[in-house]
Amino acid sequence: MKIRSFKPKPPPSNFQPGASNPGNLTQVVEQSAGKFDSLKLIPLGGVGDVTKNMYVYEYKNDILIVDCGMGFPDEAMPGIDLVIPDISYLKDKKSKVRGIIISHGHEDHIGGLPYIWPELNCPIFAPNLAAGFIRAKFTEHGLSKDMVKTTDLNSKLNLGAFNVSFYRVTHSIPDATGIVLDTPVGTIVHQADFKLDWTPVDGQVAEIGKLGVVGEKGVLLLLIDSLRIEKEGYSLSEKSIQPTFEEIEKKAQGKLIITTNSSNISRIQQAINVAVASDRKVSLVGRSMEGNFQVARDLGYLDVPPNLVVPMEEMKRIADEKLLVIIAGSQGQPGSALSRVANNDHRFLTLKSKDSVVFSADPIPSSESAQFALIDKLSRSGVSVYYTGLTDNLHVSGHASSEEIKVMINLARPKFLMPIGATFRHMRAFSQMAQSLGYPEKNILLPEDGKVIEIRENMAVINGRVEVKNIYVDGLGVGDISNIVLRDRLVMSEEGIVLVVLPLDVHTSRLSGEPDIISRGFVLEKESAELLENAKQVVKSALSRHQDQVLDWRFLRRHIEENLEKFFYDETKRRPMVLPVIVEV
Amino acid sequence: MKIRSFKPKPPPSNFQPGASNPGNLTQVVEQSAGKFDSLKLIPLGGVGDVTKNMYVYEYKNDILIVDCGMGFPDEAMPGIDLVIPDISYLKDKKSKVRGIIISHGHEDHIGGLPYIWPELNCPIFAPNLAAGFIRAKFTEHGLSKDMVKTTDLNSKLNLGAFNVSFYRVTHSIPDATGIVLDTPVGTIVHQADFKLDWTPVDGQVAEIGKLGVVGEKGVLLLLIDSLRIEKEGYSLSEKSIQPTFEEIEKKAQGKLIITTNSSNISRIQQAINVAVASDRKVSLVGRSMEGNFQVARDLGYLDVPPNLVVPMEEMKRIADEKLLVIIAGSQGQPGSALSRVANNDHRFLTLKSKDSVVFSADPIPSSESAQFALIDKLSRSGVSVYYTGLTDNLHVSGHASSEEIKVMINLARPKFLMPIGATFRHMRAFSQMAQSLGYPEKNILLPEDGKVIEIRENMAVINGRVEVKNIYVDGLGVGDISNIVLRDRLVMSEEGIVLVVLPLDVHTSRLSGEPDIISRGFVLEKESAELLENAKQVVKSALSRHQDQVLDWRFLRRHIEENLEKFFYDETKRRPMVLPVIVEV
Repeated sequence: MKIRSFKPKPPPSNFQPGASNPGNLTQVVEQSAGKFDSLKLIPLGGVGDVTKNMYVYEYKNDILIVDCGMGFPDEAMPGIDLVIPDISYLKDKKSKVRGIIISHGHEDHIGGLPYIWPELNCPIFAPNLAAGFIRAKFTEHGLSKDMVKTTDLNSKLNLGAFNVSFYRVTHSIPDATGIVLDTPVGTIVHQADFKLDWTPVDGQVAEIGKLGVVGEKGVLLLLIDSLRIEKEGYSLSEKSIQPTFEEIEKKAQGKLIITTNSSNISRIQQAINVAVASDRKVSLVGRSMEGNFQVARDLGYLDVPPNLVVPMEEMKRIADEKLLVIIAGSQGQPGSALSRVANNDHRFLTLKSKDSVVFSADPIPSSESAQFALIDKLSRSGVSVYYTGLTDNLHVSGHASSEEIKVMINLARPKFLMPIGATFRHMRAFSQMAQSLGYPEKNILLPEDGKVIEIRENMAVINGRVEVKNIYVDGLGVGDISNIVLRDRLVMSEEGIVLVVLPLDVHTSRLSGEPDIISRGFVLEKESAELLENAKQVVKSALSRHQDQVLDWRFLRRHIEENLEKFFYDETKRRPMVLPVIVEV
Repeated sequence: MKIRSFKPKPPPSNFQPGASNPGNLTQVVEQSAGKFDSLKLIPLGGVGDVTKNMYVYEYKNDILIVDCGMGFPDEAMPGIDLVIPDISYLKDKKSKVRGIIISHGHEDHIGGLPYIWPELNCPIFAPNLAAGFIRAKFTEHGLSKDMVKTTDLNSKLNLGAFNVSFYRVTHSIPDATGIVLDTPVGTIVHQADFKLDWTPVDGQVAEIGKLGVVGEKGVLLLLIDSLRIEKEGYSLSEKSIQPTFEEIEKKAQGKLIITTNSSNISRIQQAINVAVASDRKVSLVGRSMEGNFQVARDLGYLDVPPNLVVPMEEMKRIADEKLLVIIAGSQGQPGSALSRVANNDHRFLTLKSKDSVVFSADPIPSSESAQFALIDKLSRSGVSVYYTGLTDNLHVSGHASSEEIKVMINLARPKFLMPIGATFRHMRAFSQMAQSLGYPEKNILLPEDGKVIEIRENMAVINGRVEVKNIYVDGLGVGDISNIVLRDRLVMSEEGIVLVVLPLDVHTSRLSGEPDIISRGFVLEKESAELLENAKQVVKSALSRHQDQVLDWRFLRRHIEENLEKFFYDETKRRPMVLPVIVEV
């Protein structure tokens, strides 16, 4: 890897955002003909959609990828474990991929790697902590870790047509970065998840000066995290949490149990600080919590005195008032450690009424009900429960509010802007904010996943699209669940299924016995015997009307389906899936 | 109905909340032996659960019911339309029911009536607007409206052992009430949903003086809406919304489309006021919106100038900038009017990019994702979208914050307290608040649905329970969906279903042909041919190992199920429902 030298030019005078702003002030080692080639930016995931971040940058024979995250299934995806980006576009271009750059170690930026990286088999460049998390994942999936490289935030990477440098930002996980891509058509700054926290728990503040230097040289396009664009002002510092923990600890007579997102290392550090100050031992509960703690501690991201941590199996020997438990499952996920504890179904951790449970994580959108149900269950059990609705400063967001986003825009002073990591309504809100800063609407790009952004010197437009669909991971299967399968699941979940078994005599093309009707998830068979008996008559009379066509299976199936669907809807106003099964005799 | 006279006594001196407080200072026309009988209060719905409010008060031969609401299905109830309270407890006591008192006209207080009232066939006493809504419901369901009585908030009802009086409160619907039950064991105040809005849109402020009078006489038990107990201070006045509408109207160049809860008559009035002031015509869109508007207008709850409203079918002839549309579907319910408009699937209303859509309703818990998805879809279509995330004062809660609850407690000064209309976590928070006021914990009742509260003079304890379950309404069926059916729906929705069709020769007890495997919602049959082929082999070898028992269908079924479930789990880590279908040949 070679370090590339920059030839800085003086900053343009009288900078006006949105005004003509030279997009490519850095030296490009290329034939001048190359200047007429365009760079393609294709978000495969992460725009119009908060998760499964993955961005493809393509310039002639070189492709660079930023992030490779997973997404979370929504209600329309029952049974799905996770969703990953669709890399069909890269199928015939694998040899062009120079590497995957990882911005930080959150699942929606690294969680797709175990499924996607084996297809690409290229180097992965990740900040120290993220690299640790990725290596742990790869070990779990039986993958080689040789291609996982730790990036030095102070050096530069030369990857084909791309020269890549970094600056540190703050977020709800240490080692979050901004990525500067120096390309033949101009400089692109890719700012994934961040906030500007001037008192971060690890003391590592955002290196915004570095972005200032880049901005002074000229930036063509800034991609920037806009998830919290709707919030005015600034997001609170992560450090505001510890005093709340301390206050709760003073009141806690039994075990103090704190739950948070298991990748939130700074939150975990603050819980540990409270344990140390109050002379409590610490136990980590939950697979993700134990795993992330181990990686972060080994890499020096957690300051944990020796003998503080007791293994889960031994926590019973510690007096309740001397124990602080950090546990996974803060979103109320069924099957997670805290849910099992609430159901009195955990091997090592049992609740008593003097215990306190602290939710240091607000519910993520669309999983509010799961977290609230868990809070309710814990409230019933008699323990003291602390959560955001009742207690202030139990959670702060890791994402920038609108003033922080404005700071970054004014440091980078790009010609073009593109909000990322946000749903479309956030992108619209971003566009309004940017226009209020003086950016013309046409310089604000609002693409959705799969759209192709064509970038040339002084130009960036949405031009075309590639096919992207959700790739579902369900159990061991990756991509073998189609929308048809999901649609069937949804239909069955809404109204159940009715099977009609038809024994047909192949010689006479007549029913060789009674049709049988079996249902699941529709009505109770015992209590609806009459309805199902009448349905049999519907089948028989439908068949008798078409004796001649009875061996045309396709017709027969559709005919029985239609008749039964109508019958059931008339009788019950429900539409179960009707599935005729023809048995040749 | 006779008016009952009270014989007021002087208020107790040196009142201390929670201290011994004579519970029954009103004159009771009863044999003194009756004093030793207890009153039973049984919440059939509404505690530990926000919706389907229904409370049974039983004293010897008299039963009085307060409210009869519906609940909304959660994720564990796929396909269910609505949930109603379980009145099994009342089955053999119908002749004792003297009436149903309705507190106000919201669905979670009246929505159960069309399903439950025909079972009880007793008088319904409802405030004017609620009575209008109930009559409209009954007409729709083909029920007689003769038993729906409009309560006069200034007179008293004598219903068996209960004397009932009312005071007006404010809420997000006009004509909300507090209910005073004068019973042989003491006075009970039943305060369903309320807030203290001193500038309500209809000018009808809460009659808290009346509650003061009741309190001075002595109150044994206060039941009180605690949904927003977690919020400090006071809830904002409903009137704070109109200036926001006005501001948006000034910016709106095309149609102004406002969506809110269709029972929020005051919100609708404010939208109408804005239309009048800005010289726009008004059109109502959506069945619930049109219906509620009609009822409220007919009863005088809406001030609408003549010729302001144009029927939906005619709105196309009004210029966009002269039209204000009030539309149902603010929660993003699929199939609702606004969802259809967003999908460009509405007969009379089409969006143009100059139009503005205003969400004047915050998402209700656990349906955030539906509303956000609709906001996203509208944002994509290019219209201006206003919602709480971006714009202040687009919605205020109809429920009291903690200071308002404290005001009511200090007016009623009851001996016992019971939070209602809230989940258990709210009830816990209520208990903490009440203890901070000086109430001993034992005087704060936190029952859940079905618990029996035994109330005597100076005493109220939870003592026993009756069986209550969710009664599901799905299509035309009421109560015919059991938990088994729902469990089947959930299993199928998570992993699909696999059918194994086994043609069995009854004479030889052997397979008379190939077993057939059909799946839905599991894997794509075409793409997983090998898996399904191998599954057939699993079936065959399972059968061959048990030739002798092959006619024991029960055994055979379970045996095939177990083998296939294990096979599929090993191969895919999924657990579809396996359903063997045996066809006798």
